[in-house]
Amino acid sequence: MNVSDLKLRLSKAGQEHLLQFWDELDKAQQVELYSELQAMNFEELNIFFQKATEGFNQSSQQEKVDARMEAVPREVLGSATRDQDQLQAWESEGLLQISQSKVAVLLLAGGQGTRLGVAYPKGMYDVGLPSHKTLFQIQAERILKLQQLAEKCYGNKCTIPWYIMTSGRTVAPTEEFFTRHRYFGLKKENVVFFQQGMLPAMTFDGKIVLEEKGRVSMAPDGNGGLYRALAAQNIVGDMERRGIWSVHVYCVDNILVRVADPRFIGFCIQKGADCGAKVVEKTNPTEPVGVVCRVDGAYRVVEYSEVSLATAQRRGPDGRLLFSAGNIANHFFTVPFLRDVVDVYEPQLQHHVAQKKIPYVDSQGQIIKPDKPNGIKMEKFVFDIFQFAKKFVVYEVLREDEFSPLKNADSQNGKDNPTTARHALLSLHHCWVLNAGGHFIDENGSRLPAIPRTAASGQSEAVTADVNDNLKDANDVPIQCEISPLVSYAGEGLESYVANREFHAPLIIDERGVHELVKNGV
Amino acid sequence: MNVSDLKLRLSKAGQEHLLQFWDELDKAQQVELYSELQAMNFEELNIFFQKATEGFNQSSQQEKVDARMEAVPREVLGSATRDQDQLQAWESEGLLQISQSKVAVLLLAGGQGTRLGVAYPKGMYDVGLPSHKTLFQIQAERILKLQQLAEKCYGNKCTIPWYIMTSGRTVAPTEEFFTRHRYFGLKKENVVFFQQGMLPAMTFDGKIVLEEKGRVSMAPDGNGGLYRALAAQNIVGDMERRGIWSVHVYCVDNILVRVADPRFIGFCIQKGADCGAKVVEKTNPTEPVGVVCRVDGAYRVVEYSEVSLATAQRRGPDGRLLFSAGNIANHFFTVPFLRDVVDVYEPQLQHHVAQKKIPYVDSQGQIIKPDKPNGIKMEKFVFDIFQFAKKFVVYEVLREDEFSPLKNADSQNGKDNPTTARHALLSLHHCWVLNAGGHFIDENGSRLPAIPRTAASGQSEAVTADVNDNLKDANDVPIQCEISPLVSYAGEGLESYVANREFHAPLIIDERGVHELVKNGV
Repeated sequence: MNVSDLKLRLSKAGQEHLLQFWDELDKAQQVELYSELQAMNFEELNIFFQKATEGFNQSSQQEKVDARMEAVPREVLGSATRDQDQLQAWESEGLLQISQSKVAVLLLAGGQGTRLGVAYPKGMYDVGLPSHKTLFQIQAERILKLQQLAEKCYGNKCTIPWYIMTSGRTVAPTEEFFTRHRYFGLKKENVVFFQQGMLPAMTFDGKIVLEEKGRVSMAPDGNGGLYRALAAQNIVGDMERRGIWSVHVYCVDNILVRVADPRFIGFCIQKGADCGAKVVEKTNPTEPVGVVCRVDGAYRVVEYSEVSLATAQRRGPDGRLLFSAGNIANHFFTVPFLRDVVDVYEPQLQHHVAQKKIPYVDSQGQIIKPDKPNGIKMEKFVFDIFQFAKKFVVYEVLREDEFSPLKNADSQNGKDNPTTARHALLSLHHCWVLNAGGHFIDENGSRLPAIPRTAASGQSEAVTADVNDNLKDANDVPIQCEISPLVSYAGEGLESYVANREFHAPLIIDERGVHELVKNGV
Repeated sequence: MNVSDLKLRLSKAGQEHLLQFWDELDKAQQVELYSELQAMNFEELNIFFQKATEGFNQSSQQEKVDARMEAVPREVLGSATRDQDQLQAWESEGLLQISQSKVAVLLLAGGQGTRLGVAYPKGMYDVGLPSHKTLFQIQAERILKLQQLAEKCYGNKCTIPWYIMTSGRTVAPTEEFFTRHRYFGLKKENVVFFQQGMLPAMTFDGKIVLEEKGRVSMAPDGNGGLYRALAAQNIVGDMERRGIWSVHVYCVDNILVRVADPRFIGFCIQKGADCGAKVVEKTNPTEPVGVVCRVDGAYRVVEYSEVSLATAQRRGPDGRLLFSAGNIANHFFTVPFLRDVVDVYEPQLQHHVAQKKIPYVDSQGQIIKPDKPNGIKMEKFVFDIFQFAKKFVVYEVLREDEFSPLKNADSQNGKDNPTTARHALLSLHHCWVLNAGGHFIDENGSRLPAIPRTAASGQSEAVTADVNDNLKDANDVPIQCEISPLVSYAGEGLESYVANREFHAPLIIDERGVHELVKNGV
């Protein structure tokens, strides 16, 4: 260890406090801290800090974003509900692209399940479906099925490579999990792991924070760290080598995600877009979701915390919210666009500043947990590159079909937790069965209504609604119905399994057939 | 007691089993049962049963309602979002009607808080607002405020009579509660209580059910029992005597209810309607809510259990659900229409059949709790009279502004419970303050964003969103902000209290002024 050299580097960068407890560390701690600090480019970090805080201060002085926002114009918007006559054409185009092995998916899986209350990566979580499949397995099987659908449609053997961005915190357990599960049936060479970078937390005056005497406070550099990671690990080169033309980027936590959704891909391709965002309609002004819109003529996501209520409440003549394109972190990029991003645009992006309460050691070596923000984390967002698109499009889908994120542990009146994720998937698959001509019956053999009340109990107690209770019921538990992605990607192809048949829930349909877990209501 | 006479009546009606345990009852039980049975009209009950079951069997043989449903045409629809330019005119018309004392409100409060888990009427429930006001008090104060608004607008002293339908189960505690609270500031003579009827449960072959050896199984006759009660207690006569022209009918459990909403009243009046329904937009096909539509040319509410999924999923060219007029049990009737209903139409209405699991005593005198439906309850619905309207209109409002029903006790992932009701009101009042130019600040004096993340904790931890977490947050707790109805009916008139001022939550604004419960974040 050349400590004096390191000291010199630190001193030049104004970060010499990082070694203030050096003499109190044991040998192992010294080695660890030394190697951590040696790997850091302090000049670069200082520039990041300077630009990020400048940008932060500028933006707070700038005219409020409200006044500069414009809604997504209809001509760049595709809609699963408003353009039903075009869905088939988009789907065919997307499947064609897939059949030619021109489409990849890219999973953002760098976050840990902290809020979910688990110590492992979120993708390994089992929300309690009858099959007990994890999020990773569900996504893998959707990729497998989609390859089959494209092959069947166009007669070409094809591959959808899966790029998985982990972080320093999730890389080891994620790779181990995939190995243990034999890549869920995918070919190992088509699952490409790479890591996003980490950045140190800094105080408001630009000093890197020590969280222990011998350890720097580090955090992933935001999901927009994707682009730096793509460059550093030459992932775009890998895409080019494979002949990939377009990439679907998404977050690990959405149990309903349609990976490489052929309709979305086909829509973007037919529009000639280099960049696109899949969104859901925001229907309540105060829903905490970022919206895709134009600001000063460039597309971006405006966070819910950036807008005034009056702006969030604005409506068009059709009564819908003007800013209704709710961002669900489902994006389309062409590979040439990503090439430009990693070569040209990414270095121009400055980090966003997140003020945080960052635990630190004080000059006496005490660990302090502040109760006010005392420093910043720097991060980039995956949608920061929208502004560079030459042709940007937006594709609106139904929330109940495609979006149910897993963020939190179960709790009273909770949202976005294992129960809501499980219910979202079961409800959707129940609808698939009904739309394919299947029926569910209760323990007496009576058909259950399509919109169930307390279906899980198997009791269709009331033929009409209760006295004084003709409104919606609460605590609705969906009919237990799970269809393996290996059987159906998005509800297609179920007629041969279910048409004109009656089932008791729980019902599972998988590659081995149709299983009613309880026969005759017993 | 003329028991032999009663026996004869029973025997004629085929209900003689009701006295099968007569000799085993003690004197008090005998008196009670005797008086209960003496009050019943068995011939009428048998006719009710016969018609109801005929209707039930007919409807199950009839062509599915799906094929006969038509959506509400745009020309009879008023919308709080799509007709913003007309809201002011409707409001003025409604206030004019109120100022002339031509408007009454009618509360359906016959149900008990069984699902809510309390033994008293729901209107007495305190959902845990900072003020701890009950639903009854909130509604009473809205009536008071609306009288003031109308008086101020048109210079006439006016009265909005409040008709309250209780049931055998809720009448005593409800009246006692109002007396104890001095009618919440309303004049006693303008609060008119009346009772809905009760009907016995019956077996599938028309026998009245004994729930104990000496007690008949009775239940209220549905919220549509309103019309029989209006007739029996000459409530329509009272309305006529007072010169009432229109009545707003609503359910007790909606904490956001705009009693006698002048916009709704004004819209219906200007449209020349004799009957109208306030609805919220149903946005998810599988939401369990009844929808207002036309069937065979007549308006009615089709329950969610009556339609197929394919029908529920139908959409118009604008992408909205075709059957989106979600019934929230908020209705408008003119008094002449109610007069026709009680005199002519109500007797034509047959009861709906609700198959139920009804506890009963068997021939050995054992109390049995069946695990399958073993009989029926007969009920009418308040919306059964829509079909008789000469001019029916529909008024669509925003759910977040006007509808949050209290149905269940708090539970994991629960809906329509005290927490959701409380949050709905606090969120709405937070919006009112922001729209009137007020601001909320955290403990550091920084302004909180309009759309709060975890505002209740007072910590605006992240200026931007978390790493890998740019989607909606969960477990959002609204800013604690409660505005007394005595200060503002629907958000109006708050500028003088809040414009350009900054507040710490919890904030209460009531008739005594502005109260910040915590000063300086301490």
